[in-house]
Amino acid sequence: MGYGLLKGKKGIIFGALDNRSIAWKVAEKCVEEGAEIVLTNAPVALRMGGIKELGEKLNAEIIPADVTVMEDIENLVSTAKAKFGGIDFVLHPVGMSPNVRKGRDYTDLNYEFYHKTLDISAMSLHRVMQTCYKQDALNEYASVIAVTYIAAERTYTGYGDMAEAKAMLESIARSFGHHYGKHKSVRVNTVSQSPTVTTAGSGVEGFDDFINNANNLSPLGNASAEECADYCVTLFSDLTRKVTMQNLFHDGGYSSMGAAE
Amino acid sequence: MGYGLLKGKKGIIFGALDNRSIAWKVAEKCVEEGAEIVLTNAPVALRMGGIKELGEKLNAEIIPADVTVMEDIENLVSTAKAKFGGIDFVLHPVGMSPNVRKGRDYTDLNYEFYHKTLDISAMSLHRVMQTCYKQDALNEYASVIAVTYIAAERTYTGYGDMAEAKAMLESIARSFGHHYGKHKSVRVNTVSQSPTVTTAGSGVEGFDDFINNANNLSPLGNASAEECADYCVTLFSDLTRKVTMQNLFHDGGYSSMGAAE
Amino acid sequence: MGYGLLKGKKGIIFGALDNRSIAWKVAEKCVEEGAEIVLTNAPVALRMGGIKELGEKLNAEIIPADVTVMEDIENLVSTAKAKFGGIDFVLHPVGMSPNVRKGRDYTDLNYEFYHKTLDISAMSLHRVMQTCYKQDALNEYASVIAVTYIAAERTYTGYGDMAEAKAMLESIARSFGHHYGKHKSVRVNTVSQSPTVTTAGSGVEGFDDFINNANNLSPLGNASAEECADYCVTLFSDLTRKVTMQNLFHDGGYSSMGAAE
Amino acid sequence: MGYGLLKGKKGIIFGALDNRSIAWKVAEKCVEEGAEIVLTNAPVALRMGGIKELGEKLNAEIIPADVTVMEDIENLVSTAKAKFGGIDFVLHPVGMSPNVRKGRDYTDLNYEFYHKTLDISAMSLHRVMQTCYKQDALNEYASVIAVTYIAAERTYTGYGDMAEAKAMLESIARSFGHHYGKHKSVRVNTVSQSPTVTTAGSGVEGFDDFINNANNLSPLGNASAEECADYCVTLFSDLTRKVTMQNLFHDGGYSSMGAAE
Repeated sequence: MGYGLLKGKKGIIFGALDNRSIAWKVAEKCVEEGAEIVLTNAPVALRMGGIKELGEKLNAEIIPADVTVMEDIENLVSTAKAKFGGIDFVLHPVGMSPNVRKGRDYTDLNYEFYHKTLDISAMSLHRVMQTCYKQDALNEYASVIAVTYIAAERTYTGYGDMAEAKAMLESIARSFGHHYGKHKSVRVNTVSQSPTVTTAGSGVEGFDDFINNANNLSPLGNASAEECADYCVTLFSDLTRKVTMQNLFHDGGYSSMGAAE
Repeated sequence: MGYGLLKGKKGIIFGALDNRSIAWKVAEKCVEEGAEIVLTNAPVALRMGGIKELGEKLNAEIIPADVTVMEDIENLVSTAKAKFGGIDFVLHPVGMSPNVRKGRDYTDLNYEFYHKTLDISAMSLHRVMQTCYKQDALNEYASVIAVTYIAAERTYTGYGDMAEAKAMLESIARSFGHHYGKHKSVRVNTVSQSPTVTTAGSGVEGFDDFINNANNLSPLGNASAEECADYCVTLFSDLTRKVTMQNLFHDGGYSSMGAAE
Repeated sequence: MGYGLLKGKKGIIFGALDNRSIAWKVAEKCVEEGAEIVLTNAPVALRMGGIKELGEKLNAEIIPADVTVMEDIENLVSTAKAKFGGIDFVLHPVGMSPNVRKGRDYTDLNYEFYHKTLDISAMSLHRVMQTCYKQDALNEYASVIAVTYIAAERTYTGYGDMAEAKAMLESIARSFGHHYGKHKSVRVNTVSQSPTVTTAGSGVEGFDDFINNANNLSPLGNASAEECADYCVTLFSDLTRKVTMQNLFHDGGYSSMGAAE
Repeated sequence: MGYGLLKGKKGIIFGALDNRSIAWKVAEKCVEEGAEIVLTNAPVALRMGGIKELGEKLNAEIIPADVTVMEDIENLVSTAKAKFGGIDFVLHPVGMSPNVRKGRDYTDLNYEFYHKTLDISAMSLHRVMQTCYKQDALNEYASVIAVTYIAAERTYTGYGDMAEAKAMLESIARSFGHHYGKHKSVRVNTVSQSPTVTTAGSGVEGFDDFINNANNLSPLGNASAEECADYCVTLFSDLTRKVTMQNLFHDGGYSSMGAAE
């Protein structure tokens, strides 16, 4: 049923692939809480996943966009703006590393792949925000969330060059939080989520170990995709207007644990 | 009107003194969102402030308790438990430094005062939580918030020994978040709030400078007591169940700013 | 042999108990590098350990001082000052928790013990520095190091109320680093050391697990007491004059590791 | 004269341009402390600066290398390895943003420039280390330092996309510190230096304000390039063997200050 926390709000949600995606759960929750949304993903992902079904269920337009292509992003933002008048929230849970996908060790990276990792997983947030800024697409106190992982702060063997992408992503959130905050009171945060069983996540080496170890160490256990969606709803709402430029751990306490007996 | 975010929830709110207090605003908001509460403060504060008026307005029982006296805390917790069955949230915004009050320089502290600063401002959180733990007073996924300040991480000339009290407070939140989390899924966080014009805050030397400088540096400006209350409501709600052991800045972006032009 | 890094420097070294102590190794290294020192410890510790032998070996006076007793500290500082003219470095590796010693669970602390933990393990640093400040005992660019542990930032089940003591200790280092830095360019830092097999450390519950897990997770393995002494020498030297108010991890990389395969 | 701290050690120093460069000072200090070095910089920088003079003075070979060109880096590393047998330390103080150079606002970045910023300022560290790794060029306990700035953690208006480059650089240091540490006990750290008047630094907008504000806020004042060189010497020495994967602030206390009266 929902609380009506996002009544009247309009948002853009990137990255919904299938019903294990964080983005999928966020989309459902936002609509349940009263928002209208558009969905977007890369053309190739749109063909693979079940996003069409989600769009129909949520009465949400689907706008294809490759996050590394400016024309696509410009079209996405202008279409959403034309539809909604102004945008109140954006979810950016996008990340992919060709080096990790192809099993390249961190000491044997391909540098073209590396640039691609950064472009898809981090620079894409800048592209989206710069486009919104130029088109004046975000409403006052709009809330932008990018999804990140604690590997931005600490090293995990299998996370490879995604560590740098996430560190960069968190920096972009701070930097644009400053500039867009001064300009139009827009808030920008990253949510650092527990390792989550998603189709995207399953490409990362040793991922099951990540998940089990994190679950055991976290006093409350890992946070699920559904719980992440709940949390995002609060951060999109009017109740968190002064939270910005933060990296917010949503992980059952994992990040503050050293070791448990 | 509210969203009904805390419908059916029961809480204890420490530290409401007058209508400038963060606790006062949180109390009002929680009731607006459907919660039932008890209010508590030190006997001396109860005599000074207008808390009686607040209690009547919110239909909230007032239970006096000196947070450095175990019998008082035990009575508070057992009374609240008897009344409510179990407690879903606690707000701890308590802090006071006799050294700061008496204008003692950080290089000339009185060590009895110093112990008192720590007892009132930090150990009190441990006393409350240990009492709840022993009386099994908190419900599953209960949410505890202590209010802190960034002086726990960075040095502010006039903040004196409160810096240590807040560092200790944040550590207690982590430690008890671990123990009570494992035990009964209780979440414990600190909210690191912008400097706020309260009766308590006004005792700190150079406080107006704190406020203005912070306001100028924060892209969204300082967070007010009302906004803090909004944020606390989200953290008491069921939508943030996996957020625990965190220090959450609620400060318009101040903590992530280096310098602005 | 040494490099002569501390030639002509004078220091006070707290906490040497036996040849497993960090303080013991630091004392040896400092003298090897050309310093003159005085040694101090609590009267009870002086009776237990072999510090007399160390004092003879290093030609170092031993001045008993209970770090919770102002008269003792005042006598220590004035004696050292009278002997040396001015003091160039101080090592504070002092810590003890009666709650941990007596096996009290974190959810069942004795609050008198808790105050004692804080007084011995953290407030003692303030007492020493305030005394130095008042007696004008430290030379320009004097360097003060307190030894801490990562439990100040993350929770370890068995570390108990020492977590708060270390959080407080690190805060005192920052605060006094500010005040004494402005006043006389004194630097104050904490070294956050790997778990180390010392007589003091062996009182902490589950300590062997700490040590082994940390050693496995650290890319370079745990840092030993000898290595800690090497590091302290660099921080006491003139080559690190602008390093202050920092918490410096000396742990083989442990603190920056998430998880290793 | 020096202490002989780097006696017998061999190093590669990037980025010496003129006698205001940090690299220039580090090169001088390292040789003073007994090291042999090779100097390297981009061909264009070699033509502009006075590095030839430095090379002669220090008896150091100069090997041109563009840090974005693998062949150049491979040649540099293999030449240094052939000359020295193995390398004990590396200084990477390289950074440049075409966006900042051309005065582009953070909300109006050119994305080709952005990739270039990242490649020159951050990915270059990975390229160098991966090359060393593949050629097995670093000796056991070799020490690598990259120079960074606090803008990686907090936002400074004029620092632009260099914020992301430095965040990425610090992540690479951690990641490679893990991999090369496990492999051959190599240490990798970043030194986060006060804003320093260098020819490179002077390209950054509002840089004088950075410098003065930082100097005023730092209890010990800003760290100079000479002091940075002293600090680097300690980190290259055998006395700091267990310090790795750390971001080390060398800033007179600036990073731990909130606000001073």
